[in-house]
Amino acid sequence: MTDSVHAADACAPLALPTPYLLFLGDVQHRGYAKTAFGLRDWAGELCIGEFSLPDATVSTGLPSLCLGEAYAQGARGFVIGVASQGGAIQPNWVPTLIAALEQGFDIVSGMHSNYRDIPELADAVARTGRRVIEVRRPPVGLPTGTGAKRTGRRLLTVGTDCALGKKYTALALTRAFRARGVDADFRATGQTGIMIAGSGIPIDAVVSDFVAGAAELLSPDAAADHWDVIEGQGSLYHPAYAGVSLGLLHGSQPDVIVLCHEPGRKTIIGTTDFPIPPLTEAIALNVTLGALTNSGIRCAGVSLNTGGLDDAEAAAAIAAAARETGLPAADPVRGGPDFERLVDACLA
Amino acid sequence: MTDSVHAADACAPLALPTPYLLFLGDVQHRGYAKTAFGLRDWAGELCIGEFSLPDATVSTGLPSLCLGEAYAQGARGFVIGVASQGGAIQPNWVPTLIAALEQGFDIVSGMHSNYRDIPELADAVARTGRRVIEVRRPPVGLPTGTGAKRTGRRLLTVGTDCALGKKYTALALTRAFRARGVDADFRATGQTGIMIAGSGIPIDAVVSDFVAGAAELLSPDAAADHWDVIEGQGSLYHPAYAGVSLGLLHGSQPDVIVLCHEPGRKTIIGTTDFPIPPLTEAIALNVTLGALTNSGIRCAGVSLNTGGLDDAEAAAAIAAAARETGLPAADPVRGGPDFERLVDACLA
Repeated sequence: MTDSVHAADACAPLALPTPYLLFLGDVQHRGYAKTAFGLRDWAGELCIGEFSLPDATVSTGLPSLCLGEAYAQGARGFVIGVASQGGAIQPNWVPTLIAALEQGFDIVSGMHSNYRDIPELADAVARTGRRVIEVRRPPVGLPTGTGAKRTGRRLLTVGTDCALGKKYTALALTRAFRARGVDADFRATGQTGIMIAGSGIPIDAVVSDFVAGAAELLSPDAAADHWDVIEGQGSLYHPAYAGVSLGLLHGSQPDVIVLCHEPGRKTIIGTTDFPIPPLTEAIALNVTLGALTNSGIRCAGVSLNTGGLDDAEAAAAIAAAARETGLPAADPVRGGPDFERLVDACLA
Repeated sequence: MTDSVHAADACAPLALPTPYLLFLGDVQHRGYAKTAFGLRDWAGELCIGEFSLPDATVSTGLPSLCLGEAYAQGARGFVIGVASQGGAIQPNWVPTLIAALEQGFDIVSGMHSNYRDIPELADAVARTGRRVIEVRRPPVGLPTGTGAKRTGRRLLTVGTDCALGKKYTALALTRAFRARGVDADFRATGQTGIMIAGSGIPIDAVVSDFVAGAAELLSPDAAADHWDVIEGQGSLYHPAYAGVSLGLLHGSQPDVIVLCHEPGRKTIIGTTDFPIPPLTEAIALNVTLGALTNSGIRCAGVSLNTGGLDDAEAAAAIAAAARETGLPAADPVRGGPDFERLVDACLA
């Protein structure tokens, strides 16, 4: 495995320039502005306003500001809050991005495009001395993991599959912890989460030897009563991504996991013949494997994504999950007493 | 997790130019020439000769050839077969490397150094149109895993820890399979293994989202009676590298695993408080997790690294491992009837 030459390098998670001005391009479908809406909903205090091109028809409802106004109000990060086909920076965005650099903003991008491949943009970066921070790219010089126990408390959201609410659950739990006066930080491992948190590490883009080390760096030593609530990735049951999930589990060394699940989903996303595991089995496997770096690991409960169900169906699914596991179950989007019981169990 | 834009790209494992001329620099300690000795011992048919600087005192025993002679005899890969402090290409090697490029060789390097950081070398590459193939760097455009079942048979060496003989065991099993007339290929996942095989993927340098996909690419569909014998990496019990091991296990979808172990080792390498697991537990965990992508997975036996033991101690350790697991156990370096029984069990 990797030589210690890497492990000696110093490193830190990405840290983004805030507050943000959200760039919406010429977006005409709300779905393409998911990043902007996520920032509005989960990091409203970081968002000064939005900036759109003339053809845009979607708005976050935040104040529409020109670059100068937003900068004068303190905004420092110009966030590309819109997706595009193929994840590319669109040619008609480039003049605005250059103007933002000239205004003094740094650009925050989750695009697949490397800005260095767009000569005018690369020139503007060099000329202005500003930065384009690509949140898909992990920091360089990440250490390998050590497994050494860290102070403070940690919660990791894990899943029966990908794409069923691990980020949302971690954000909702962080908010609920804080509402109870508990000192808590959301720790981001994916690009949208990183923009929301203003920092983090895109764990699935990290070279495999350094995944556990990156996770260790992401939730450092903290006060004994402090909680890091860590955004999970993938699933131990996904044939492509289980290794990412295991490295994140080991490096996070969580005291508590919350299992995220979508009732009714039958097979692992992107496959036809990998079944979603039973909840009790998924809990047992995460606890068994997580015990390597934290022998006290326990599952506090189940977070269900019931977005596809009506109220009665959702209530039945929540009750069934609680019965099956003997643990609190809730949909954090629906909230209510179920969710409060899940929060109780996390902090117990 | 990663978008499908990556999965659509075509890709192939590294393929190295062979046969080799082994470059030994001015090596004066045999330990620094481990790569060259590994190539001599395991890929002798690929090695035309060696080339040393005047101060070298170590020899592999292969013919000492000048660049022109070796090229005339068919050598096409000039392999840096020597390690250095910090893994850097040494300044006094550079004139020879340039001369090799000018002679028509491609250079095969396992160094940490990027040759592009050495201007004279980069210039020579551009001028000659030859290549420097850095076996630490994985191919670009790797796909994500699919979990789809492939034809042919696969064996993966797994370990109770890192650095205890997974590569050696895979090489020895491949050689033994072939000696019995079984069509078998060694599939390399680390840099020395890649040089020995002439191809492969440095799995621990792959971005985490693509580890299982890289492993799938490494052992493609094959004839029903063909065996791929895959070099394992890390251990499910290593707090830094378990995720790498799991991605490799899932992507390899082995029919058979062989557990590699060093008797007497008490703790995971580089740690003080992570115990080496019992053999039966390590077998059960690998089989349980491997069943995700191959429900027929089984453990054929245990490969022991008894290099630190005398003959009587080694025999006792082998007998103890066989008794503990109920499976054949052997040290492939010692060979003998124990090893033949392990080979029998693999092919059973």
